[in-house]
Amino acid sequence: MTAPVRRVAVLGAGSWGTTFAKVMADAGRDVRLWARRPEVAAAVNERHANPDYLPGIALPALLTATSDPAEALEGADAVVLAVPSQTLRANLASWRDLLPPGCTLVSLAKGVELGTLLRMSEVICEVAGVPAEQVAVVSGPNLAREIAAEEPTATVIACADHDRAVALQHACTTGYFRSYTNTDVVGCELGGAGKNVIALACGIAAGMGFGDNTRASLITRGLAETARLGTALGADPLTFAGLAGLGDLVATCSSPLSRNRTFGEHLGRGESLAQAEAANHGQVAEGVKSCKSICALGDRLGVELPIADAVRRVCHEGLSAAEMGKELISRAPRPESE
Amino acid sequence: MTAPVRRVAVLGAGSWGTTFAKVMADAGRDVRLWARRPEVAAAVNERHANPDYLPGIALPALLTATSDPAEALEGADAVVLAVPSQTLRANLASWRDLLPPGCTLVSLAKGVELGTLLRMSEVICEVAGVPAEQVAVVSGPNLAREIAAEEPTATVIACADHDRAVALQHACTTGYFRSYTNTDVVGCELGGAGKNVIALACGIAAGMGFGDNTRASLITRGLAETARLGTALGADPLTFAGLAGLGDLVATCSSPLSRNRTFGEHLGRGESLAQAEAANHGQVAEGVKSCKSICALGDRLGVELPIADAVRRVCHEGLSAAEMGKELISRAPRPESE
Repeated sequence: MTAPVRRVAVLGAGSWGTTFAKVMADAGRDVRLWARRPEVAAAVNERHANPDYLPGIALPALLTATSDPAEALEGADAVVLAVPSQTLRANLASWRDLLPPGCTLVSLAKGVELGTLLRMSEVICEVAGVPAEQVAVVSGPNLAREIAAEEPTATVIACADHDRAVALQHACTTGYFRSYTNTDVVGCELGGAGKNVIALACGIAAGMGFGDNTRASLITRGLAETARLGTALGADPLTFAGLAGLGDLVATCSSPLSRNRTFGEHLGRGESLAQAEAANHGQVAEGVKSCKSICALGDRLGVELPIADAVRRVCHEGLSAAEMGKELISRAPRPESE
Repeated sequence: MTAPVRRVAVLGAGSWGTTFAKVMADAGRDVRLWARRPEVAAAVNERHANPDYLPGIALPALLTATSDPAEALEGADAVVLAVPSQTLRANLASWRDLLPPGCTLVSLAKGVELGTLLRMSEVICEVAGVPAEQVAVVSGPNLAREIAAEEPTATVIACADHDRAVALQHACTTGYFRSYTNTDVVGCELGGAGKNVIALACGIAAGMGFGDNTRASLITRGLAETARLGTALGADPLTFAGLAGLGDLVATCSSPLSRNRTFGEHLGRGESLAQAEAANHGQVAEGVKSCKSICALGDRLGVELPIADAVRRVCHEGLSAAEMGKELISRAPRPESE
């Protein structure tokens, strides 16, 4: 039996980190939020707000923030890592010596590390020097803005150690946030990593003028290829039918707020990667990067990923959106399970 | 090895029947479409159009129509049944003696028959007096209007006899329509029947003002409960992660054209069933009826269906949308697989 989670450090005060800190504070936990910038911490402490990342949301009065990681981490039973996936390694290395022994490390980041092709929980085990049983992952249809507004939302807490997942589940149960436990960490992480690429594909289709059938087909077959990849990595195929697979994918591919979807729409209208980037305030969407690491994982494991591969070639090899559409529809007929 | 499908009868000239007839004609098959009303058949033959059900769509010149079922059925290798689910039994009984021996019977109808709680393929076997291996089901994210406009779409052709499914697959493969075979008829049918109830739940949530997280959570947990019911009936749980489960559900719950979703929105805004019915031109949505037969199946098999049951009580027992929301979010915490 794992001890209850009473004290929590949330490291990273972006929209999702701040929202998750609010959820755990609303669930009655003693939460300290670490913000890189002191003025963000001051706004949380003094005005109970994070106007840069969650404008208009009132944060719980009991939630405190600090820009000192040692202060945030002291005595924490659970440490929630809410920094971007490609910077997680460097951030965690700087916090390693401050981690309370035995604490549960909770990853909110999604993605596959470029170069190493490691999942975020693997990066955490490696950098923090802890066993996999000590690391949990939160994933699901979790648009931060909607949770912060207390709209009903469900999520998955995955941990190889079921008791740890249950302790976390109790620590984030509120009247608007419902969590389910799962022991399949690999499946939950792969679902999150794959969705950005599929959202990009859905955006491309929308940009070409196609409607709900095409999008639903891309979501379904995209989830199927992500599940094939995940299964080859040891995931339970049914996880992909759950909140961290299907749920997250549907929320992302439907939301007009999804940057991947919007970015894809530009490509679907025939714009180049550079033009789409310019329209997106000079940033490439996450899926543009992760389609490379996902396809590299597929290659390594011998798993065919027709949609991710088509997205990769549109983004990086000049395949046109029209050619992509033609290719996907005219593949050889086959059973649905293949 | 099953003989190829060369000649096809499509019985029912609504939007989906007419669209599927177009797909098979575009795939080079000799297709005869039966329309109840002679003027609809005349429009197809003379103007290559079905203005009542598919306005603005040009039908293939080689597609012919008739209002005489004997003429449509003569020599058909495959007979596609495209009439509403609650009238399928009576229609098929009147055509029974005209069915060519050995032909494949293809069901486009979705739903569970009120009273008997039989799936459509079971109704077909019973009325036509054929073995289950002779009956196939087509199901997927198939908004007729988009397929008729030749937008890329994928679907599932399910038949216990794999060779028959493959013969049908070849008979409906075109540059815009891609089909996958599956042997799990029960799963494909249950996915189609369940989606209308879940779409109603999504509409209720939208009417209450909730966004993409809530909808994605309802879709995911709704699919999970449909899968539990299907599995208890002998379906393969993975079918629900496919085009006939997830795919169809996502397309229906996303489309502003879905009558179930729109109907639910009225209920979510606090209107009564009678008010929602009046706003929907005096018709109740399909899910209002099928939530009863789905819940009755769940009761019979001892499967908990919290979302379908909540929808049933909102529609038929005066539960308010607000109470429904509170109930669903506050169920006891549990693992995702339960």
